[in-house]
Amino acid sequence: MKQRASLRDIAAETGVSVATVSRVLNDHVNVAPRTRDLVLQAVERRRQAPVQRTVYVRCPYVLSDYFGLIVSSIAETLKLHGVRLLLDAGESAQHTEALRGLPGQEDVHGAILILPPEEGDELVALARAGFPFVVVDPRTPPPPDIASVSAAHSAGARAVADHLISLGHRDIAVIAGPSEWLAGDARLAGHRSALAAAGVLLSTDRLRCIEPTTAEGRRAALELLALDPRPTAVVCFNDKVAVGTMQAARSLGLKVPEDVSVVGFDDIDLSEATDPPLTTVRQPLQEMGSIAVSQLMRMLDGHRPEALHIELATTLVVRESTAAI
Amino acid sequence: MKQRASLRDIAAETGVSVATVSRVLNDHVNVAPRTRDLVLQAVERRRQAPVQRTVYVRCPYVLSDYFGLIVSSIAETLKLHGVRLLLDAGESAQHTEALRGLPGQEDVHGAILILPPEEGDELVALARAGFPFVVVDPRTPPPPDIASVSAAHSAGARAVADHLISLGHRDIAVIAGPSEWLAGDARLAGHRSALAAAGVLLSTDRLRCIEPTTAEGRRAALELLALDPRPTAVVCFNDKVAVGTMQAARSLGLKVPEDVSVVGFDDIDLSEATDPPLTTVRQPLQEMGSIAVSQLMRMLDGHRPEALHIELATTLVVRESTAAI
Repeated sequence: MKQRASLRDIAAETGVSVATVSRVLNDHVNVAPRTRDLVLQAVERRRQAPVQRTVYVRCPYVLSDYFGLIVSSIAETLKLHGVRLLLDAGESAQHTEALRGLPGQEDVHGAILILPPEEGDELVALARAGFPFVVVDPRTPPPPDIASVSAAHSAGARAVADHLISLGHRDIAVIAGPSEWLAGDARLAGHRSALAAAGVLLSTDRLRCIEPTTAEGRRAALELLALDPRPTAVVCFNDKVAVGTMQAARSLGLKVPEDVSVVGFDDIDLSEATDPPLTTVRQPLQEMGSIAVSQLMRMLDGHRPEALHIELATTLVVRESTAAI
Repeated sequence: MKQRASLRDIAAETGVSVATVSRVLNDHVNVAPRTRDLVLQAVERRRQAPVQRTVYVRCPYVLSDYFGLIVSSIAETLKLHGVRLLLDAGESAQHTEALRGLPGQEDVHGAILILPPEEGDELVALARAGFPFVVVDPRTPPPPDIASVSAAHSAGARAVADHLISLGHRDIAVIAGPSEWLAGDARLAGHRSALAAAGVLLSTDRLRCIEPTTAEGRRAALELLALDPRPTAVVCFNDKVAVGTMQAARSLGLKVPEDVSVVGFDDIDLSEATDPPLTTVRQPLQEMGSIAVSQLMRMLDGHRPEALHIELATTLVVRESTAAI
């Protein structure tokens, strides 16, 4: 029996002395049979009582509009399951040795790791240690046996390119994310494939790979919009980059969408605050959180998750930053 | 001695049998003195070892740009103190009986409550139960003995009104927050007092109290901007309301800031994405989180917090949505 309850707790519960509890547990002879039964029953009750589960959730980024929505959804869903959430969040959570310590923490039963900075082999090591966890929004393609939930980046990006092509655009520039990211890679692949299907090859002078911030987006867009001929549309890695692109267009005296169409990705609050409001791709952030919890609960109950890698559909949201050429 | 460690743990640590540990703890005579010392030393080490503290953090709202930044800062600061964070977040955390249960949870040592929906007397009851906690961004004026951290709403609002007055504005409309909120009340009081100091009385037809969302802001602004004479500036409860106000102005064919100046509050990401970028008041969200943790740590160490009600200074951020009349 794994002896979690202290002698004192059992003594308090049964009304006998700590010394007596100890004697029962160590099979001393001088204990009355009725007292022995009382103590052993209390021990057994404690052994069978469901321990409240606790799940470690790590989001090593500021809980902005994007990550905050995922964590909110995880929190609400864990609560529905009666599970406690131990949070590790903010940039400082990047530099922890947290993963290696997880299997040794008796009171932590599983984990949800959002966009983990670790390499795949560290995740595999955690899984081999028998510790149940789910990766949300993996940064690199998840190893085969790691449960993960992500958005269908490639399909979302194809929808963007198809939308622009249907509006008559052919000279489409792309401001992509870092190429070592799954999201950056998959979205770029989606753009390329939709363009190629329309007979258009994305030329390297029309492509920039950047850290996805508003400032970097503005800088890249200033270069792209200075090209001759000027691209008629700019596809951006996310909404923040699109805001930077709209600022660049404005500073060059260009109107969106009359002179250039701009598309974002994510559909965070920003995308409705811009003028004009931004055409973008809605990521299923809430569903990513709730499905990650469902997968983890199955694992905690000893089942294999139903599908190890889950990709959730995205939605193209057409607003006013895109127009026919 | 509070006996937290199980016999088995001490046995494993000292290399003697569980039965021997038990005999030492129960003052049996048949234990070798050296073994007895070994066991008692191990017990003492465990008694002195600091138990890892856990703090319950409740944010009963979606972790958007505003609340997410506060929670991120709390998470990073608790981590610096080696304290674990148990998170309860999202709208569903509104409807819990969580507070009453807190003092009974042995492994939760304190709490940080962000914008708690409870009335003051429920908070007082929690404090009277001897449970250490700090309120961040109180919704109503905090009772005298409750530790709280908030932004200096009134001073921030005065700075906004002073800025507009210095630009020559006198006919200033106000879209305020709900009047039963401390933030709504204090900001409105700040606007009123700065206007009054300039000899201007805020008339009721130039005031709206609303739920602070973009949609409600747009609706209220459409009414205010239809007044004759039209106010030359609109002061908004927060940045989301200001985005709605800018949309309303645009839909009426008015230019910001040429035809009407618009000011927000909070300085969330939105405020740099609008066209023109928004003049607003920066709330010290990070500091609110880190100071709440410092206050709580002092309480956990048995001290009284240094100042029960802490108000942190705000900063006026002048961008391009305000101009001289």
